[in-house]
Amino acid sequence: MVADIPFEPVLEIVGVGVGAMSGALAAVRKQFDVFGIFVLGWAAGLGGGLLRDVLIGAVPPVGISDWRLITTALVGALVMYFFHPRLQRARRFIVVLDAGALAVFTVVGTVKGLEYGTTPVAAVIVGVITGAGGGVLRDLLTGEVPVVLHDRQLYAVPALLGAAATTALWFAGRPTPLVLSVVVVGVFALRVASLRFQLHAPGPWRGRT
Amino acid sequence: MVADIPFEPVLEIVGVGVGAMSGALAAVRKQFDVFGIFVLGWAAGLGGGLLRDVLIGAVPPVGISDWRLITTALVGALVMYFFHPRLQRARRFIVVLDAGALAVFTVVGTVKGLEYGTTPVAAVIVGVITGAGGGVLRDLLTGEVPVVLHDRQLYAVPALLGAAATTALWFAGRPTPLVLSVVVVGVFALRVASLRFQLHAPGPWRGRT
Amino acid sequence: MVADIPFEPVLEIVGVGVGAMSGALAAVRKQFDVFGIFVLGWAAGLGGGLLRDVLIGAVPPVGISDWRLITTALVGALVMYFFHPRLQRARRFIVVLDAGALAVFTVVGTVKGLEYGTTPVAAVIVGVITGAGGGVLRDLLTGEVPVVLHDRQLYAVPALLGAAATTALWFAGRPTPLVLSVVVVGVFALRVASLRFQLHAPGPWRGRT
Repeated sequence: MVADIPFEPVLEIVGVGVGAMSGALAAVRKQFDVFGIFVLGWAAGLGGGLLRDVLIGAVPPVGISDWRLITTALVGALVMYFFHPRLQRARRFIVVLDAGALAVFTVVGTVKGLEYGTTPVAAVIVGVITGAGGGVLRDLLTGEVPVVLHDRQLYAVPALLGAAATTALWFAGRPTPLVLSVVVVGVFALRVASLRFQLHAPGPWRGRT
Repeated sequence: MVADIPFEPVLEIVGVGVGAMSGALAAVRKQFDVFGIFVLGWAAGLGGGLLRDVLIGAVPPVGISDWRLITTALVGALVMYFFHPRLQRARRFIVVLDAGALAVFTVVGTVKGLEYGTTPVAAVIVGVITGAGGGVLRDLLTGEVPVVLHDRQLYAVPALLGAAATTALWFAGRPTPLVLSVVVVGVFALRVASLRFQLHAPGPWRGRT
Repeated sequence: MVADIPFEPVLEIVGVGVGAMSGALAAVRKQFDVFGIFVLGWAAGLGGGLLRDVLIGAVPPVGISDWRLITTALVGALVMYFFHPRLQRARRFIVVLDAGALAVFTVVGTVKGLEYGTTPVAAVIVGVITGAGGGVLRDLLTGEVPVVLHDRQLYAVPALLGAAATTALWFAGRPTPLVLSVVVVGVFALRVASLRFQLHAPGPWRGRT
């Protein structure tokens, strides 16, 4: 954890909880049993950080060892288990919370990579994996093609820019909590703006080549 | 390995062999070629321990380095390769063997996690992953949604209880081989009882919320 | 990297680039967006080495930390992004390049495993995973059953033989670059011959057992 981003622990808890809700909802839709719903909550809420920790050698990963984060994921899954008929209608609210989670995970993940002495390019990749990896695991475990790879929303692109900004700031002199918070807000704003204005990534090139 | 559970090496061999047979059978059903059948045997028999070892930092994992266990998995796959028309009819027998494998893998995996100094919650998760992870890899590699997440059988729940019991006993003073054996038998009995009496985990909540 | 195989860095670059093109092409066919196309290029070009490095504890893996290899993968994906209408017609050429990549990755991966002190059996497995793992990740991320497991082509078998030969030579006295190059050529030739003469691995046994 990067203790000196203000409210970072709070934001990380929100991120894990929202991620877990998205995983549990996917499991509910697939008619998984209650064990599967909790596993999907865990995988979606903590899977990005778990991949990050395995890749940088921070084992055991916080996703299996930090009981506070794991409890958060299980509570998120439990809430979705009982309230999914209502919460599905609050979809827009959850998408905005998820944008916050993406922003926090990306910046926190990038900084953790840098703290473990990775190369700049590795820090950026690790940051994006922290932000988007939980959703990829969720989709693979429910038999879906990862939505982040094909839905043409700007989901990973804000994370990529945020991870690159964080890495650049790191090598320009260790960034202050305030500066990192600004990056978090920037990723969040870019993600929300892409939803609001329906910005899309292009599909395969169709030019006359 | 946890050398002081009586017959533990024997049980682990049985577990790997039975897991490998389940993987090879899934590959046969999908009309995989002979290489794919061996890979699935390996993944289903040793995949749970492989995930465990990567998560706790015990690399290279026994799943790629221990030639006795790997040979066992390949022999299990070979047996299924030649005898699948007959063995499919012995399904009930194989399900009981698989319950034994689940019980052994869970307790052994939990203890190995604890020996590597994980937190209690990590030991429980690692134990369940050791027990159920091979089947998850098998299902993903054959293009199926992991059966443990949605079929409502009590498969992971006995593992979860066994891993929790093992962890509690560990922190109450290092458990004797006899005590660990009782936990193994308990997980096995719970799994077999759930099959015999058709106990099921509930699906998504349908209450009026 | 195994700097003393002549032209090894060149061959590795070719391997990553060709692998990335195969991943990007799979993404184009699934109508992924441009981000997904780059991710698939990265996963297919560098995924085998990434799995290898996680399994032998060489973290962070070169797949996230070596900017030259990552740039190569992104360029490979970019080329396929723009030129896929033409390149799909050059399929035979790409299959031959891919055979070269398989050969290089297998031998280099096996040697890296041995350099990290793995057991002989682990070195062989690690070599095959290095050679074939990128394609498996590509297929899983595009929602396909891994083609290497079921298409009955001799793809992994040449890799297996090459990894075994490399390991045997290693324990017979550290092999010279020339000897390793011969193994690379052998794997390549076996792969191309299996395509030319349509050699196939058998499917499930259908005997009267």
